[in-house]
Amino acid sequence: MSTGVAAKRPKIVSSQPEERVDWKKRKAEIKETKKQRKEAKLIKQLDNQKQQEAAEKAKLEQSNIKKGRAYTVSVALPGSVLDNAQSTELRTYLAGQIARACVVFCVDEIVVFDEEGEDVKSVEGEFKGVGKKGHACIQLARILQYLECPQYLRKWFFPKHQDLQYAGLLNPLDSPHHMRIDEESEYREGIILDRPSKQGKGSLVNCGMRKDVRIDKQLQSGLRVTVQLNKAQNQESKIYQGVVVAPHVPRTEGGLYWGYSVRLASCLSAVFTESPYKEGYDLTIGTSERGSSMDQSTMSPFKHLLVVFGGLQGLEASVDADQNLDVTDPSALFDLYLNTCPGQGSRTIRTEEAILISMAGLREKITAAFSDVSNTSLKN
Amino acid sequence: MSTGVAAKRPKIVSSQPEERVDWKKRKAEIKETKKQRKEAKLIKQLDNQKQQEAAEKAKLEQSNIKKGRAYTVSVALPGSVLDNAQSTELRTYLAGQIARACVVFCVDEIVVFDEEGEDVKSVEGEFKGVGKKGHACIQLARILQYLECPQYLRKWFFPKHQDLQYAGLLNPLDSPHHMRIDEESEYREGIILDRPSKQGKGSLVNCGMRKDVRIDKQLQSGLRVTVQLNKAQNQESKIYQGVVVAPHVPRTEGGLYWGYSVRLASCLSAVFTESPYKEGYDLTIGTSERGSSMDQSTMSPFKHLLVVFGGLQGLEASVDADQNLDVTDPSALFDLYLNTCPGQGSRTIRTEEAILISMAGLREKITAAFSDVSNTSLKN
Ligand SMILES: C[S@@+](CC[C@H](N)C(=O)[O-])C[C@H]1O[C@@H](n2cnc3c(N)ncnc32)[C@H](O)[C@@H]1O
Ligand SMILES: C[S@@+](CC[C@H](N)C(=O)[O-])C[C@H]1O[C@@H](n2cnc3c(N)ncnc32)[C@H](O)[C@@H]1O
Repeated sequence: MSTGVAAKRPKIVSSQPEERVDWKKRKAEIKETKKQRKEAKLIKQLDNQKQQEAAEKAKLEQSNIKKGRAYTVSVALPGSVLDNAQSTELRTYLAGQIARACVVFCVDEIVVFDEEGEDVKSVEGEFKGVGKKGHACIQLARILQYLECPQYLRKWFFPKHQDLQYAGLLNPLDSPHHMRIDEESEYREGIILDRPSKQGKGSLVNCGMRKDVRIDKQLQSGLRVTVQLNKAQNQESKIYQGVVVAPHVPRTEGGLYWGYSVRLASCLSAVFTESPYKEGYDLTIGTSERGSSMDQSTMSPFKHLLVVFGGLQGLEASVDADQNLDVTDPSALFDLYLNTCPGQGSRTIRTEEAILISMAGLREKITAAFSDVSNTSLKN
Repeated sequence: MSTGVAAKRPKIVSSQPEERVDWKKRKAEIKETKKQRKEAKLIKQLDNQKQQEAAEKAKLEQSNIKKGRAYTVSVALPGSVLDNAQSTELRTYLAGQIARACVVFCVDEIVVFDEEGEDVKSVEGEFKGVGKKGHACIQLARILQYLECPQYLRKWFFPKHQDLQYAGLLNPLDSPHHMRIDEESEYREGIILDRPSKQGKGSLVNCGMRKDVRIDKQLQSGLRVTVQLNKAQNQESKIYQGVVVAPHVPRTEGGLYWGYSVRLASCLSAVFTESPYKEGYDLTIGTSERGSSMDQSTMSPFKHLLVVFGGLQGLEASVDADQNLDVTDPSALFDLYLNTCPGQGSRTIRTEEAILISMAGLREKITAAFSDVSNTSLKN
């Protein structure tokens, strides 16, 4: 990678003629040139598109050959961040920003915790639409789940659109497990169909393809499953063949990013204690402008990383509200307590911005931790 | 900085008693505890607030002692990104996101370029409100300028709110030059007042303080100026004393971040050729998922850094549309062409996200370039 500081200038052709020009003629010329350019452009665009598709597929295949990813990354944040939005539309948009930030950085689990901690019910019960305030945790969790669900499965798992009035404003996650109908992939998310199938024949699954998939097991209809499609398929057959696998298999064996799970926690401490990983999180990072500069920190390999963000009042407020915690300084809760944006030019960074900024900073450190040979030996 | 991977668990006090409890009694106890907690919390919050204010001031003073920042950072992006928003409110919000991303990373100049390149007029003329499509460059530039302007000056420079229908949705930049009324600072932004003043006495400036400021020069009323306030002020006097300085002085001498300027460019090449710095940009970075991984790149000190982002179709589209450029591969235009998010979990990263992600990644490299002693000698 060259880092030339030399004043290399872009190749620019002067478009300003030295002498006075015949504007009418010139205009006609420009028009003609433009037309030709447009045509050439269209052809080029089509070409580019094809090339891109091929490159994407190659990339996908390559990452399939590489060993899978053994570690997981979790992000936790208070649902109250939604109350920081200035309109009901923006509440929804904010949830979408958080979902996208997590997907861009291949986050496997999003934990939404209640930083009011007053009422356990705040993370239970039915969701009743995107209101102005309150129920923020459930609202955020629902929108995160909705976005994570592949489009072709949404009609089953999110039949009513009442809780997603503004879903039209949400930017798609465009993650690898959101397949288009004709896309080829070893893995696919699907729903067990309610079709009678002979004993021992296994259920039929809708995986968003032109044909349904017959799997090895008989499962209850309506279940969401991860399917591994058989390598060889009989193209004549009206159905594909596959097997059900655990949702982590595309990551652990295929090395693919496969979306996130969503978990609600009734308080900050429950983020730690109710980890879905039986060994818990083995590396925890708290984020704050009052943390130590991340520039001086390095990371060692981990199995389950947890990165925790605060709301409007920072993690201090979440600690204060949590009756299970007898510390006052949030830094005591974490292995690392990091300022991920030293020298920030705004007095305050919003949580949705902090996720992108912090995960961008951590990404390179994670890569370094797992690619360094001397480190890798420490891994297990 | 410790990087413990050991499973250090947060200090958690179990709240679940082993035996059955008298819930009524327990509830009353909890209520009382909560009340006490709330009071203690309020006191603590006030304390915290005071401490924070003191810390902020100390930080500010310290950065004043440190030598100023000699280099500048510019960001360029196509105005067409606004057309990627799904509602007129979100158009405005998107502009605000871009402004905030730039402020968080102390960007000194934002260049909005026209990637359609069909009509020079697209960056000229009057702004007519946030419409559905079109005029994206001017709209983006106006909103950026509005947000950069300290609140107390907006009534003068943005008298009509027609072009800012949705300004209420914009999150404030909260940058250091947006002073509160009683905040103490060596520098302040102000407007020359239309008040008769005796020959040789200098103009009066409104700097958003309780008193106006008399400056050393007589300037035309309505001008926006940067004022350096005299260290010693006569507290009895009805006006403060100060001198007019160039807008870069708070940065170059005070080491403060002082907001950004906004520039319109009629095409991508004009971003480079119309630089306000007479030497031009001496380090230019293009961003693309097809660039080389930023992880392998390091930076050398520079005077004027330019980081360029593409729109929906990437920088390829901006290059294609620019009749002044005879290259087809955008990478040829830049010193570095970087993928700032290798291994991204979404097929596509939006421009507003890419700014935060890229600048977060570059921040540490910039810091390293200017703090490394061996590098600094190369600086001039
Ligand atoms: C609006 S900020 C909280 C500001 C609050 N006044 C405070 O003092 O913590 C919301 C969250 O963004 C994250 N954050 C903000 N600035 C950060 C920084 N410089 N480094 C790391 N995280 C940051 C933290 O998780 C924080 O709790
Ligand atoms: C929506 S993306 C453009 C996507 C377009 N399909 C392409 O292939 O370039 C908009 C802009 O975000 C920035 N961007 C997106 N992903 C990036 C990455 N991985 N590294 C650096 N910049 C990126 C680039 O400036 C890009 O032009």
